Amino acid sequence: MNNTPEQLHHDEMQHTLRDVQSLLTRRKLEEDLVHRQEMRNHELVENLVHKQNVVRITEKLNTLHPADIAYILESLPLDDRLFVWDLVKADSDGEILLEVSDAVRESLIESMAPAELVAAAEQLDADELADLAPDLPKQVMDDVYLGLDAEEREQLRAAMSYEEDAVGALMDFDMVTVREDVSLEVVLRYLRRFDELPDHTDLLFVIDREERMLGVLPLQRLLINDPDKLVGELMVTDMLCLHPADKADDAARAFERYDLVSAPVTDRDRRLIGRLTVADVVDYIREQSEADLLGQAGLREDEDIFASVWDSVKNRWAWLAVNLVTAFVASRVIGAFEGSIVKLVALAALMPIVAGIGGNAGNQTITMIVRAIAMDQLQPGMFQRLLRKELSLALLNGLVWGGLLGVLSIVLYHSWSLGLVLTAAMTLNLLLAAFMGVMIPMTMYRLGRDPAVGSSVLITACTDSGGFFIFLGLATLLLM
Amino acid sequence: MNNTPEQLHHDEMQHTLRDVQSLLTRRKLEEDLVHRQEMRNHELVENLVHKQNVVRITEKLNTLHPADIAYILESLPLDDRLFVWDLVKADSDGEILLEVSDAVRESLIESMAPAELVAAAEQLDADELADLAPDLPKQVMDDVYLGLDAEEREQLRAAMSYEEDAVGALMDFDMVTVREDVSLEVVLRYLRRFDELPDHTDLLFVIDREERMLGVLPLQRLLINDPDKLVGELMVTDMLCLHPADKADDAARAFERYDLVSAPVTDRDRRLIGRLTVADVVDYIREQSEADLLGQAGLREDEDIFASVWDSVKNRWAWLAVNLVTAFVASRVIGAFEGSIVKLVALAALMPIVAGIGGNAGNQTITMIVRAIAMDQLQPGMFQRLLRKELSLALLNGLVWGGLLGVLSIVLYHSWSLGLVLTAAMTLNLLLAAFMGVMIPMTMYRLGRDPAVGSSVLITACTDSGGFFIFLGLATLLLM
Repeated sequence: MNNTPEQLHHDEMQHTLRDVQSLLTRRKLEEDLVHRQEMRNHELVENLVHKQNVVRITEKLNTLHPADIAYILESLPLDDRLFVWDLVKADSDGEILLEVSDAVRESLIESMAPAELVAAAEQLDADELADLAPDLPKQVMDDVYLGLDAEEREQLRAAMSYEEDAVGALMDFDMVTVREDVSLEVVLRYLRRFDELPDHTDLLFVIDREERMLGVLPLQRLLINDPDKLVGELMVTDMLCLHPADKADDAARAFERYDLVSAPVTDRDRRLIGRLTVADVVDYIREQSEADLLGQAGLREDEDIFASVWDSVKNRWAWLAVNLVTAFVASRVIGAFEGSIVKLVALAALMPIVAGIGGNAGNQTITMIVRAIAMDQLQPGMFQRLLRKELSLALLNGLVWGGLLGVLSIVLYHSWSLGLVLTAAMTLNLLLAAFMGVMIPMTMYRLGRDPAVGSSVLITACTDSGGFFIFLGLATLLLM
Repeated sequence: MNNTPEQLHHDEMQHTLRDVQSLLTRRKLEEDLVHRQEMRNHELVENLVHKQNVVRITEKLNTLHPADIAYILESLPLDDRLFVWDLVKADSDGEILLEVSDAVRESLIESMAPAELVAAAEQLDADELADLAPDLPKQVMDDVYLGLDAEEREQLRAAMSYEEDAVGALMDFDMVTVREDVSLEVVLRYLRRFDELPDHTDLLFVIDREERMLGVLPLQRLLINDPDKLVGELMVTDMLCLHPADKADDAARAFERYDLVSAPVTDRDRRLIGRLTVADVVDYIREQSEADLLGQAGLREDEDIFASVWDSVKNRWAWLAVNLVTAFVASRVIGAFEGSIVKLVALAALMPIVAGIGGNAGNQTITMIVRAIAMDQLQPGMFQRLLRKELSLALLNGLVWGGLLGVLSIVLYHSWSLGLVLTAAMTLNLLLAAFMGVMIPMTMYRLGRDPAVGSSVLITACTDSGGFFIFLGLATLLLM
């Protein structure tokens, strides 16, 4: 892949995108024109203006890096996207398919004929192919597989055999290896035989005859040392070796912590099988942080902003349905106290305050805990300490804010006892929110589930039903 | 910085952390023992077991990478943290201070004497110093400044003059430069005079006598080409040049898109002034994604999990106060309809369903939009299309889920008209949620504010007050 495209800058990208969009708009206007003139001038327009436009869009696109074309495709609605995709489909369409988001990729693949897909897939390395494979029709994958040599087949099989969030699924196979008993001079001569080195080559892997990792030779050691020295003298032997089954999260943290550019991936016998690069790690971190953000609202990641209403429904319905059930439960809790509400209608007006503040505070707590889990900062022994802290905070907030609202309600409703019940209920509900805000993500985490997913819906369910029950219950006990 | 620490692996780190924790626990147990025996055996224990423990913790820590020590410090509560910090404070404490989170850094700096801080700061490069400077007492910075040479002072001034989210604040000054009219052989000889190359050196910067960027020579071109060739023949001239005032977000996306390891930073005259590396970009991406996640719940980023209750109050009170006001407004909306509720108490039980589902759906919409803005996928012309899509989705959801709940309420309350009002109110509130879910982040974005901050609180405020008003208003109009 080319690291130095011409159109690099953000403003330039925006400019290019606007250019493409205005060309597309003009194309549509002209098509409308043709339609309105009942196709009379059809051929004239088709031949002159329209084709000029298409040529200009195509020229523009041909100067772009695959990642930039991916960005433009993602920024266009479906019909424009497929029109542009038809123009660029060429030797880089495999790479473009890798760069676009899942939802956009699906829309592009749907528009392609099997033969085109096979041609696109054949341009890719085994590790890239493994990323694309789940989205390709089985027949296409079978065809592609037949075209691979034995080593590539083995690599593809290996890359596809790991979980999506394992190092094995992210690694590539572009390793440059050297022996320990040669001089740097020999290594330098060996490298000059390459047409190009793999991207992100900052380390040469030193292996023995059984392909076992002995160490790594950083390029910078190769460059600053005397060419007569031996690889074995200069190699680093206490480097990070990843295993393909390692969690990608852990590997990403190691890259962050130690500022790595690449790291070897080895099997249990320390045999070199691949490498992980910072480019894959960056993509992984970005995808994860998006998934976290969306997950909290109960969304999956594969809805792009141009998704059809129907795709959006599929993405969002599950948590809405959960929310419907929890809201219905909360409603029944209130229903149980209808007698009290009829006697003192102020309860109906005040109860959403108790529930709302509880939900908000609970969301703050749960967000803190989810983040700490994501950052791997939560140790087993910390549970009690955290709970104590959040409960103290809730007590303080309850007395201060609850007290304030209690006073307000006394002013509004001229009832001291109602004010006290409100303050007490708010404090208790904030304590419940703190308790559940710690318990929900910790429990999810212990069950091996992602603590971020739907956490917001769950905590709100607790604080709504709980808040109504506490407030109306206290009021029924003390005021009726 | 050393890229190849001994203790690299996640499991090993966890193991080390547990070791340190159990040593700390044992130390505390022993201290308790001494206290309970009324200090009688004080000197014996102090001299033998206790000191052995301290020595073992210190030995353990001395083998660790600064980033790992930072991780351990972040994972310990304040008293243990300061105890461990006293043991490691040594030649790497400047780097450790850079690695820890803001909140933990504050707690460490508070515990240090000015002279210790000066010593720690003096170990750092100008760009690192700029990161630390805002947290250091003024007197300490003045002392450190006096110790810098003219070039370092200029670099520090430059690095500190940019906004936190600008490329200038993230760049470093570790550039290796070459001239275009020399051969690769000369470059190779020049590099051998270095003791070490800066981390993440994948490009040599080619400059003229006025320090203007002519191009970059990737190390891989240096390695694979004939040493007789000239730098000028092989350099890449259409590389990405960042400006120090560029947004870090845009730079991070460029690094992601083009899989960069480093990029030059130049001024308006194309004079080379610094470089940005992928390590800084990875840190930036991680910090941003955390801030997004926390911001949605109305939290700022500098509260660590061990923060005191008081620090947590300061972090969380602002949005809780906002929420209190919005909840109070919602309560007054209900108060305005007390007459209707007394006549038909079922309204009190059903109204939170309308508000709750609206809030949940609104949060889904707002999360999608905030994410699209963060990914730079939102073009000006898209507004109407998005709004149309979200409104269609809301209409569909309202008719389906609202219809379902309408039927349920007919079964529960034996009133057809109440069921119809519930369905209509849910549909209208979902439409309101969709409208505000698009408008709130778009407006924040146009006003140049972070659309993620507090978005969840704001949308919930709209759907609560709006939901109560719509449902109770419809009921009053149609059922009373």
